[in-house]
Amino acid sequence: MAPIRLDALSMSTDNTSSNVNSARCPEITISEYIFERLYQMGVKSVFGVPGDFNLSLLEHIYDVKSIKWIGTCNELNAAYAADAYAKTSRQMGAVLTTFGVGELSALNGIAGAYSEFVPVVHIVGTSPLPEKRSNLVKNFHHLITNRKMYQKPDHYVYEKLAQTFSVASASIEDGDIAKTCDSVDNVLESVWRESRPGYIFLPCDLTEMKVPFSRLNDKPLKKSYDSGNEQLVDSVVSEILERIYSKQNVSILADAFISKFRMEKPFEKLVKLLNDKVNLFDTYMAKGIFSEDTDRFVGTYAGKVGSKQVSEAIEASDLVLYVGSFANEMNCGFFSYKLDESKIIDLNPQYIRIGKKMYTGVTFMDVLPKLIEKLDASRINSSVRYKSIEKQSLQKVQSNIEAPLTEADLGRSLENLLQPDDILIVETCSFMTGAFQLNMNDARMVSQCYWGSIGYALPATLGACLALRDFQMPGKVITVEGDGSAQMSLQELTSMIRYEVDAIMIMLNNSGYTIERAIKGPYSGYNDICGNWQWTKMLKVFGDINEEKSRSLQITSSKQLSNLVNAGLHDEGRFQLIELILPKFDIPWHYGK
Amino acid sequence: MAPIRLDALSMSTDNTSSNVNSARCPEITISEYIFERLYQMGVKSVFGVPGDFNLSLLEHIYDVKSIKWIGTCNELNAAYAADAYAKTSRQMGAVLTTFGVGELSALNGIAGAYSEFVPVVHIVGTSPLPEKRSNLVKNFHHLITNRKMYQKPDHYVYEKLAQTFSVASASIEDGDIAKTCDSVDNVLESVWRESRPGYIFLPCDLTEMKVPFSRLNDKPLKKSYDSGNEQLVDSVVSEILERIYSKQNVSILADAFISKFRMEKPFEKLVKLLNDKVNLFDTYMAKGIFSEDTDRFVGTYAGKVGSKQVSEAIEASDLVLYVGSFANEMNCGFFSYKLDESKIIDLNPQYIRIGKKMYTGVTFMDVLPKLIEKLDASRINSSVRYKSIEKQSLQKVQSNIEAPLTEADLGRSLENLLQPDDILIVETCSFMTGAFQLNMNDARMVSQCYWGSIGYALPATLGACLALRDFQMPGKVITVEGDGSAQMSLQELTSMIRYEVDAIMIMLNNSGYTIERAIKGPYSGYNDICGNWQWTKMLKVFGDINEEKSRSLQITSSKQLSNLVNAGLHDEGRFQLIELILPKFDIPWHYGK
Repeated sequence: MAPIRLDALSMSTDNTSSNVNSARCPEITISEYIFERLYQMGVKSVFGVPGDFNLSLLEHIYDVKSIKWIGTCNELNAAYAADAYAKTSRQMGAVLTTFGVGELSALNGIAGAYSEFVPVVHIVGTSPLPEKRSNLVKNFHHLITNRKMYQKPDHYVYEKLAQTFSVASASIEDGDIAKTCDSVDNVLESVWRESRPGYIFLPCDLTEMKVPFSRLNDKPLKKSYDSGNEQLVDSVVSEILERIYSKQNVSILADAFISKFRMEKPFEKLVKLLNDKVNLFDTYMAKGIFSEDTDRFVGTYAGKVGSKQVSEAIEASDLVLYVGSFANEMNCGFFSYKLDESKIIDLNPQYIRIGKKMYTGVTFMDVLPKLIEKLDASRINSSVRYKSIEKQSLQKVQSNIEAPLTEADLGRSLENLLQPDDILIVETCSFMTGAFQLNMNDARMVSQCYWGSIGYALPATLGACLALRDFQMPGKVITVEGDGSAQMSLQELTSMIRYEVDAIMIMLNNSGYTIERAIKGPYSGYNDICGNWQWTKMLKVFGDINEEKSRSLQITSSKQLSNLVNAGLHDEGRFQLIELILPKFDIPWHYGK
Repeated sequence: MAPIRLDALSMSTDNTSSNVNSARCPEITISEYIFERLYQMGVKSVFGVPGDFNLSLLEHIYDVKSIKWIGTCNELNAAYAADAYAKTSRQMGAVLTTFGVGELSALNGIAGAYSEFVPVVHIVGTSPLPEKRSNLVKNFHHLITNRKMYQKPDHYVYEKLAQTFSVASASIEDGDIAKTCDSVDNVLESVWRESRPGYIFLPCDLTEMKVPFSRLNDKPLKKSYDSGNEQLVDSVVSEILERIYSKQNVSILADAFISKFRMEKPFEKLVKLLNDKVNLFDTYMAKGIFSEDTDRFVGTYAGKVGSKQVSEAIEASDLVLYVGSFANEMNCGFFSYKLDESKIIDLNPQYIRIGKKMYTGVTFMDVLPKLIEKLDASRINSSVRYKSIEKQSLQKVQSNIEAPLTEADLGRSLENLLQPDDILIVETCSFMTGAFQLNMNDARMVSQCYWGSIGYALPATLGACLALRDFQMPGKVITVEGDGSAQMSLQELTSMIRYEVDAIMIMLNNSGYTIERAIKGPYSGYNDICGNWQWTKMLKVFGDINEEKSRSLQITSSKQLSNLVNAGLHDEGRFQLIELILPKFDIPWHYGK
């Protein structure tokens, strides 16, 4: 069995040391405290937009030398970038916005991070504390008026709303300093532990509030999963082991929460212990967790939208260890998984389910290490071998459409282009279903396929590039973007020039929302977009007048595309926008081949 | 006294007839019903973005010939456009989005409409009804997962959230058809009556549900303000009249709710009745309600940020009729109004306040007509005349900065450019404070100065242009946009080409967030944006390759600018983007001159 790809990850684990030194003033501002704590959590770039309620806070970002401010064109783009930053660095992302207008604009991006379990902190500069507490009817800008406008507006309205989209929040006040700092720390620790967004609301008049510098070193932030339920863990582990030993045809289905909850190393050990006795499967969202040439790796299980042979293989198991399960529509072949509940051991970050028995006081972060410790590999039966299942490959996939260039051609070229440690970002677009069937060559995929907000991939490219740069990770960002999707967040192309990132962005010019034409209204006007965009001139207009920091190319045939890939596309040291001219209805792998 | 400008408005009042004819099938789909009702309310263009949960609904927009689908690049831009459409047409705006990702992206724009009292309907295509009702744990795309992911997600989560930002909502179900139609009608009537957003949530599986066609004609939508509290109205009116008769120096302060609640005609009558006995003032947000040459018009009251002489004049009154009062930070000179409560009769759409006495069961929509009916003009004392107060004009305003071109120059040129019935859209940017001091020449101003979300003006330009076109209103849209703001919503420039609108967009290229540099961090990096944008090539790249539908010019001196205005800038029949190269710190009228 080939090793699971963990080398890229291991490069970025030692970032918990603070960039502070003890010779400094014994007090720092709460603003600086927040940025220092972010840095300790693995944030080196903060994305966002200035606004009058966050300017004083922003002044302090320059106090923390190891944190960079990345001004984006708007707040939704900032949230997308922070999401991809966290997914790529496997640390944490941060967004900074202003009261009301800014935080609401970012909300869709935060909701996506909440649903896809991405650790993103959203820091909001709010109205001043005395106004928040006042009983006067004063209608502030950026603050929604009361339904009854003769009554006071509620300055906490957005903070209440944020609770739906976060696991913890801190609303800074001027009282007990220790408690205030605790509340900030609690947000960051919760975001880390639950891998979901949290909020810090800082009133614009409190940015200079002093807090003790010593906390930064004396109270390290907790990064651990402790159930505190050892007895339950032990009994659950015993029960799991008994099941494993008693079955003849055990499979492992590896899912996205393994990496989202940083369990790659224990998982790798588990797989090693099981040696070559069990069959290995992954899911769409865990794609890349196994090298494609891993001996016992059968394929990606995607129910009716994936390979029929792969589905039949896993469904024939008498026990499935569903590790880091992330059950959702897009990840389970549109709810077409056919695995009897009684055959599943569901190992999840919020619960363990053995057949029909549900345990909520225990998680797979507790169970996995214990399982490894107790497992007696000699007692495991060798399951059936699936030699006959062909490795998935796009070499044989054909487009249904006769054209000089199709998405099938793109798939084949990507398989040549991708190198180990690369980040492949795929937009929620016509190409996505196909992308899950690519041979990844040990590259990683970053997408927002479950939340599925189009427009994500373009700002995500910025976030992913900066994560690679900040943590000196190897690899290159390669993005597949649809033209309809790109229109949602287009302006962020300018940031590729501003921050000098060297991604490859492949723009699918197919004249509109092709993925939606496949669902409804293939010829309906609402699926058209404004045509005639001059993609190859876009980066010039956005600031790279002499093409010093980028190049832009239009590709119209598969031959041109493969020539470009062979001519060193991967190693060009500047941003590249590659426009592909594609047929309007070309979706080669649409919903089940 | 010159007439109050109502002629543009009167052109667009007769649009309540439905475009349906009785020879049709006795049943129509609920989708068509919604669009027909929108049309009856004065919506001829619906803004939005397609998504898988609204495609079936969108198919039916083509059933209603008089309604057009205006696909925008993203949902926030759609909301801004709909807001400006409603403000310009003085009818209603409509946005159509998809479940979760779409509706959340539009939220900041809806919140703005809620705060600024703009009638905008937001129609959302949601997940299917059986899924909404199901108790199964199925994690759908676009739907936020439960905090406990082993519990069912809440399909109504966004509908609950929308309640904070709307006055009414309808969640379509499959039960009683009459009740379903009533709920749709109720949303539209509430939006009209309260002049604030409402929501219609239509599950994607119910788009073909049949409803009776006859309702469209048999049950006309109510467009009236009936308090049903005649006795209270009478007593309030008597009390107001007694006050007016007893005072020596009465002023009228005309505010934004006069037009937002369609009270221009009764208000005009009131002013006529009072003849030339009282002094007239307006506010920032009501700017344009009086012609600048109206005899008794003293000026715009803006507290400490406006003219000192105007403030002294109104503050010397012994009674102020504050008609259509919209008290908020930006409209009241940052809460610097100095009017003793005892001297104010506050006539508001939600209450009447006479001195300290508050009446909530009655509104100025009830009171104004009665007041006119009962008023005996002969009993009013003539208040002091302010002959000496100079008309505000920018002719004398100087920029503080020595440069070939400044915002003061722009102000002077705008005063020459603006013609009656034009719509001047001003971004929340460095120029805004100055804009309120312009001589408007009977043009109207459309802005989002209270909510203040930068990026509004660019998509608003699209909305305003389509409103003028849809209702065949005279005038031209002229927009002043900042470069930092434009970056937020830039992609919508393409829609100017796609929908062939002929606005003039004046782009202030001052290298960043100048308005924020004035508040904090003049040299801080966070107030920079990506420079080097080629504004004059933008429209070519966005589809107008041969400059057939637009032209773009760069202006670097005040002489060039005034020459351009004199050379027929106003009457060019295509979209014009005029880039002004301005100094980084140029804000000639910043916060009090």
